[in-house]
Amino acid sequence: MSFAIIAPSTPTIKWKNEFEKQAPNENLLIGYETDKPEDIECVMVWGHPKGSLKKFKNLKLIFSMGAGVDHILNDDSIPKNIPISRIVDSQMAFSMTNYILMAILNYQRCWYDFQDAQDRNHWAQFEFDEKSLNVGVLGIGHLGNDAANALYRLGFQVYGYSNSSKETIFPSFYGDQLKEFLEKINVLVCTVPLTPKTRGMLSYELFCKLIKPTYLVNVSRGAVHIEKDIIKAIEEGKLTGAFLDVFEKEPLPKDSPLWQHPKIKITPHVASLTYAEESIRQALESYQRVKNGKKLINEVSRDKMY
Amino acid sequence: MSFAIIAPSTPTIKWKNEFEKQAPNENLLIGYETDKPEDIECVMVWGHPKGSLKKFKNLKLIFSMGAGVDHILNDDSIPKNIPISRIVDSQMAFSMTNYILMAILNYQRCWYDFQDAQDRNHWAQFEFDEKSLNVGVLGIGHLGNDAANALYRLGFQVYGYSNSSKETIFPSFYGDQLKEFLEKINVLVCTVPLTPKTRGMLSYELFCKLIKPTYLVNVSRGAVHIEKDIIKAIEEGKLTGAFLDVFEKEPLPKDSPLWQHPKIKITPHVASLTYAEESIRQALESYQRVKNGKKLINEVSRDKMY
Repeated sequence: MSFAIIAPSTPTIKWKNEFEKQAPNENLLIGYETDKPEDIECVMVWGHPKGSLKKFKNLKLIFSMGAGVDHILNDDSIPKNIPISRIVDSQMAFSMTNYILMAILNYQRCWYDFQDAQDRNHWAQFEFDEKSLNVGVLGIGHLGNDAANALYRLGFQVYGYSNSSKETIFPSFYGDQLKEFLEKINVLVCTVPLTPKTRGMLSYELFCKLIKPTYLVNVSRGAVHIEKDIIKAIEEGKLTGAFLDVFEKEPLPKDSPLWQHPKIKITPHVASLTYAEESIRQALESYQRVKNGKKLINEVSRDKMY
Repeated sequence: MSFAIIAPSTPTIKWKNEFEKQAPNENLLIGYETDKPEDIECVMVWGHPKGSLKKFKNLKLIFSMGAGVDHILNDDSIPKNIPISRIVDSQMAFSMTNYILMAILNYQRCWYDFQDAQDRNHWAQFEFDEKSLNVGVLGIGHLGNDAANALYRLGFQVYGYSNSSKETIFPSFYGDQLKEFLEKINVLVCTVPLTPKTRGMLSYELFCKLIKPTYLVNVSRGAVHIEKDIIKAIEEGKLTGAFLDVFEKEPLPKDSPLWQHPKIKITPHVASLTYAEESIRQALESYQRVKNGKKLINEVSRDKMY
């Protein structure tokens, strides 16, 4: 067999080192330039160029190096019979949950106001109160549920919403109950996968359904939100601000108005980091399962798109 | 009976309103100026002027409006037979734990580096890693234990240290094991009460016992740390930085070098807020217990000083 790692915009040295440690006798191609494309049986991909997998005629498995798989499903040139598997890693949930907590706690405790005060050598002891929050988590998958549980256990009021009914320790909504969900909350955390249904979902229309001025945290995919609608909703007070890790176009263009918006905080798609060691382990295991005709772990449904 | 609230540097309007709601038929004095000091049987205090309680000859209970009681115990003019009670409130633990989490998560996720990058419209995707943290909580009382439990449940490695042996869900040290505790950690969260033993405890001498460069979070009392020692330890790389909510002198003087130190974050003693509703409820209940000769809840030990 032969593996390839195709992730043009990502440093792959850690993945390469980890692969060589865990599978010292296997060949590994970095990128998609090769004289022997027929040797490649498993590709690990993140943002591969569309069409670049076509030449691998003996491909048996596509493994997504991140939680999202839209980058794979959007490539129509990939034969539908090749199974897709993705990483599901407790370290990723640790990472994502902590990121969401950080975004919410900084907002709840008026951290940015205290930083402004520090800049001015100003003792702002009685100027800012803790905010009382009702946190809505949109998308109760592996990562969304982990974050919602953590918030709930810390003592926050939490509501969930997902496509289908889920068993949760906090109140949750599904299907056509989106409006009821949005009416409850004043913080909206978005952890949905990118699908045709969620594309552009965080729109002005949705923000108009919020009853309370709401803080937005988007850690899913940039294509789920509409950036000009976020800015408009902040201007109108429907949103109190936003903490964004993902963007319509990444890297976020230098001239985006988001960068210097006083109510928008930006991180460069780092909310949930994937770890080479666990990812390579899961990719190798998935490949063994495909070869042995066993059921894949964390196989992606092309219909559900996650 | 009559109550007095004596908290010169704190806005007391919420406390007054709450008292009038819960005890509409009782007299309440704000401050300590009165023609009838003999009427006052219970005082609720925060930072009262030393000696100002002397004139209340019929005082039956002193209630601390915050978790710390050093401000009461440091006043030698208070007769030793008057019981002291303090607020113990789950809302306070919620508040303190969230504050500690915020300080740690901002550090762990390199939040300040990402903010600098945002200031420069710069996409710093591969420049900062999550830090691997071993959090040491110094002082496993009600508040310290709550924070340590939350960190542990989130998946952080946590160690505790306290005066006497405590049952904890994380590994903990006590008594003469301070050195072993300090050798384990790279984040030090201080939640000890201020006692003669803890005064000046966070000193250069203690920082020298740390093996790994360590981030300091002090949410206890300013007199527990020595500010010039913190600055020296940061300069020498023993500390990687500090997140301070309390100071040797409060409000922190305008000309303190802490304000503009690039590795020090400052909040104005807001880590744990007390809530008027629950505090008044506990003060009224404590007073009833004193009057009826029942055992006080959360009575302060003058020997232990907490």
